[in-house]
Amino acid sequence: MAAPVIGPEIDRLIQLLARLPGLGPRSARRAALDLLKKGEASMGPLADALTVAAARITSCSRCSNLDTPISCHICTDARRNKSAICVVEEVADLWALERASYGGHYHVLGGVLSALDGVGPEDLSIIDLVNRAAEPDVTEVILAMNATVDGQTTAHYITDRLIDCNVSVTRLAHGVPVGGELDYLDDGTLIQAMKARRPF
Amino acid sequence: MAAPVIGPEIDRLIQLLARLPGLGPRSARRAALDLLKKGEASMGPLADALTVAAARITSCSRCSNLDTPISCHICTDARRNKSAICVVEEVADLWALERASYGGHYHVLGGVLSALDGVGPEDLSIIDLVNRAAEPDVTEVILAMNATVDGQTTAHYITDRLIDCNVSVTRLAHGVPVGGELDYLDDGTLIQAMKARRPF
Repeated sequence: MAAPVIGPEIDRLIQLLARLPGLGPRSARRAALDLLKKGEASMGPLADALTVAAARITSCSRCSNLDTPISCHICTDARRNKSAICVVEEVADLWALERASYGGHYHVLGGVLSALDGVGPEDLSIIDLVNRAAEPDVTEVILAMNATVDGQTTAHYITDRLIDCNVSVTRLAHGVPVGGELDYLDDGTLIQAMKARRPF
Repeated sequence: MAAPVIGPEIDRLIQLLARLPGLGPRSARRAALDLLKKGEASMGPLADALTVAAARITSCSRCSNLDTPISCHICTDARRNKSAICVVEEVADLWALERASYGGHYHVLGGVLSALDGVGPEDLSIIDLVNRAAEPDVTEVILAMNATVDGQTTAHYITDRLIDCNVSVTRLAHGVPVGGELDYLDDGTLIQAMKARRPF
């Protein structure tokens, strides 16, 4: 019964909104109704922003960050530390680390190795990373994959691939999150935090 | 630190997506990244759908449903029962009742009376409803506001306003939801369900 009442224009808008991560069919309906109630003032700018982004945003040919020019703001920023490359899974991780005041360069893999999902080394930008790590400026590669099984497998694989490059390979520290309560932490985190304890 | 890394085009897209109900800043970032990863194939159609909806969808001048023509599909559908008007708060409620195979007409109030939010009778389309209820075809007005304090206050107010119209005013039944377990229901619902018990 729903189909004939919701016209094709509204239905298409709902279908497209429902494809966004975090929006299901019900919240897509709510979002569409909200947009329709606010009218042109709300839908026009969003349509423009999408069109501009689709036309101008592209993957950086060097580090795979998403930005406007062919080489991104990070890769072309002369004030950044050229000696460090931080390897992340996705652009979202790059944004997160950027909030943590990291001042070096990045390399976005585009995912992690996963036998289950059929993702092999050739599906990730690992060869580009090895080539960048061989550049004379680079002295450190920081592996900042997620602390998941696939993330750590990928980190080990990359460490092996970088063995001939003259760089030190480091990874993010594991430990108690700031604000975390010991009672609520998993054993793996506690074991790592205890092992890596430091003088106070 | 975040601002210089996320370019203005991506930032604007995130800001606009974050205004949608159900999307916060974090999920708007995720949605924007998803759109950007899929590129033009994902952003183009959404931009087009928004533009089309902004240009063509409008409020029905009669019942306030959102649809393409000036008078909506429901108001112009000759197969529908002209004698009943179902009064709802929002278009989302209309869509929900339409899934319940209601075959009559609707009237979207555009909200509920609320002293707290400063919503008075003049802010809702109540005068239009009284005029429609006075038409000779109409014999029943079904009040289908939400079972909230504001919804029921609005229902009582509308009942008073319809006193001179020659229509029967009804409301949705209260009771145990289908699939509901008595142990988990609130007392108000159980009292209403017991009061309105029917022969088996």
